[in-house]
Amino acid sequence: MSVGLVEKKSITFNTELRLESGRILGPITLAFETYGELDLKRSNAILVTHAWTGSAHLAGKHQEDDPKPGWWDGIVGPGRLLDTDRYFVICSNVLGSCYGSTGPASINPRTGKKYNLSFPVITVRDMVRAQELLISHLGIERLLAVLGGSMGGMQALEWATQFPARIASAVVLAAPARLSAQAIALNAVARWAIFNDPTWKKGEYRKNPKDGLALSRGIGHITFLSDKSMTAKFDRRFSARDGQFDFFGQFEVERYLFYNGYNFVDRFDANTFLYMAKALDLYDAAWGCESLEEAFASVTAPIQFLAFTSDWLYPPYQTEEMALALQSLGKPVEYHLLESDYGHDAFLLEHDTFAPIVRNFLETVER
Amino acid sequence: MSVGLVEKKSITFNTELRLESGRILGPITLAFETYGELDLKRSNAILVTHAWTGSAHLAGKHQEDDPKPGWWDGIVGPGRLLDTDRYFVICSNVLGSCYGSTGPASINPRTGKKYNLSFPVITVRDMVRAQELLISHLGIERLLAVLGGSMGGMQALEWATQFPARIASAVVLAAPARLSAQAIALNAVARWAIFNDPTWKKGEYRKNPKDGLALSRGIGHITFLSDKSMTAKFDRRFSARDGQFDFFGQFEVERYLFYNGYNFVDRFDANTFLYMAKALDLYDAAWGCESLEEAFASVTAPIQFLAFTSDWLYPPYQTEEMALALQSLGKPVEYHLLESDYGHDAFLLEHDTFAPIVRNFLETVER
Repeated sequence: MSVGLVEKKSITFNTELRLESGRILGPITLAFETYGELDLKRSNAILVTHAWTGSAHLAGKHQEDDPKPGWWDGIVGPGRLLDTDRYFVICSNVLGSCYGSTGPASINPRTGKKYNLSFPVITVRDMVRAQELLISHLGIERLLAVLGGSMGGMQALEWATQFPARIASAVVLAAPARLSAQAIALNAVARWAIFNDPTWKKGEYRKNPKDGLALSRGIGHITFLSDKSMTAKFDRRFSARDGQFDFFGQFEVERYLFYNGYNFVDRFDANTFLYMAKALDLYDAAWGCESLEEAFASVTAPIQFLAFTSDWLYPPYQTEEMALALQSLGKPVEYHLLESDYGHDAFLLEHDTFAPIVRNFLETVER
Repeated sequence: MSVGLVEKKSITFNTELRLESGRILGPITLAFETYGELDLKRSNAILVTHAWTGSAHLAGKHQEDDPKPGWWDGIVGPGRLLDTDRYFVICSNVLGSCYGSTGPASINPRTGKKYNLSFPVITVRDMVRAQELLISHLGIERLLAVLGGSMGGMQALEWATQFPARIASAVVLAAPARLSAQAIALNAVARWAIFNDPTWKKGEYRKNPKDGLALSRGIGHITFLSDKSMTAKFDRRFSARDGQFDFFGQFEVERYLFYNGYNFVDRFDANTFLYMAKALDLYDAAWGCESLEEAFASVTAPIQFLAFTSDWLYPPYQTEEMALALQSLGKPVEYHLLESDYGHDAFLLEHDTFAPIVRNFLETVER
């Protein structure tokens, strides 16, 4: 069942956060939403962390006539995986994003102007430090679980290594310990598309640089799908409106990428896209350590990893590497490789498949 | 041994070619090179067909001080796979390209101006029809072999289905019967990068649109490599010149893509890039037929297929599909899946691995 109507929330911390880069950022606003009720022992809170272009709007609708519910609605609500009759579910827009939290598109209170490229480079660790402020503010000492996919999975991992005492478990979907050279290269060409757009103006645009941002999204979109899922959806169908021998004639898959790319421009800020890509590239679970084993030495919470066979952006071997490192340290860890043709997007789409597995894990943690 | 110094050749046919699109194109100039000597029986000619950005300059050097030899020098010369003491090797720049053959960057004799986008859309079949003019001009009734990789492999296939009496064999490396939706999507974003460049001006540029074309190449470049080869070459090394937390700081892999992308602008025409991408997208070995089996019914020459395990642009399953179709028709066919970490580029790099296999095949054909 859906959680129904939900409320947008926001909090501003008048502290200054020392970022991984050494720079100082503050005040810090975080947009967030909550679903369900915190129990008296404050022991039933689950933090869901979002990916590159996600927001705090995890589930439900803000208004009855919203065309779509939140981005991972299928797993949140009474009777669903994150059962709001049992759990208090929290989702916050990450630091550096453009959906209500402090980011490059926010006004810098010192200048009265948008930060744009004067915004400091943010890391996943910085995002988690900001989340920790929110969790403390909500009066939660220890989260029952942190759960996320892709960049959300990286945040769950950072909670496990940086705030081990504050979580009872972590669920990491479709996330690597660090981006491969290929994944960085794919982010690089996506960035390049924005840099090439003359309306981007080194970040000082008034209107989102649409052609560059749409193309960036198009490139990203390909990496979220798979060879098989694209064949299943489009195969080689040619747009009915176009002639096969027209220079500008398009295959359906091309039209789809264009359509979705230009739609994306209406909902996501170009500079933010670049800052998120940077955070992804810089992410390394072993940041500041010699090895994954050294980084994972601090972990106390059991971690459940899920990977999907057709995910070529963050391939399963990368997830497996982390599970093995934890296992070698004798830490409680689970690794599940799930068969799916949906590519990286499987973590958003295959919830019927993974829900029973994650439910089992959460129930074990609760006991 | 290298073939040494070689000569650029060119021929203009004052005929008009009826293209697959129904449009008429002529006169037609083809740039070509030859290596070795045609024997008295005219039975030792091998045509090598090139890929997307290739040229007629297959092997050797034009001048002693050329920094590099031709694009597939390693397989051509005395003692090499295509032994010029035995074979007469021919390579021509495809119709529609920008290395001396008639293409969008050529002058339209009717207007005295560059064709640009008034150039008709070209298919791989059209390229092969133009090559057939050249082969006839050289007095060759029947080629001992047509050999090519990627788009070159597609041309070899077209020779096998369209001119079965004119070839004794075909060798097809790293080529599919048709591009998958994913491969089309990757071409689509590469095209999009050029379309977005304001200096492209719908093809009416004076100077190559460099930012767009460099990015197009960057996207393509990623698809020619593999996850493993990129990790081996770059891993996560950060450019020594850049700060990790600089907004514009680059990983080595990113710097490499930029560097090679901008170099590419000096050597390849943007409109030509678009026409070649179009030809690739439209390519279908079963063009005009109901099935691959129907298309392959005309084949008489033995075909040798080679695919490489890490090629994710034109994955081995696509090559295998063709081998199976020919086998089901009782046609002589060989399929070799070669282990390689080099991705699609393996066909250019792994000649030590495939040379003995192809040599065996050619020797069998000769007997």
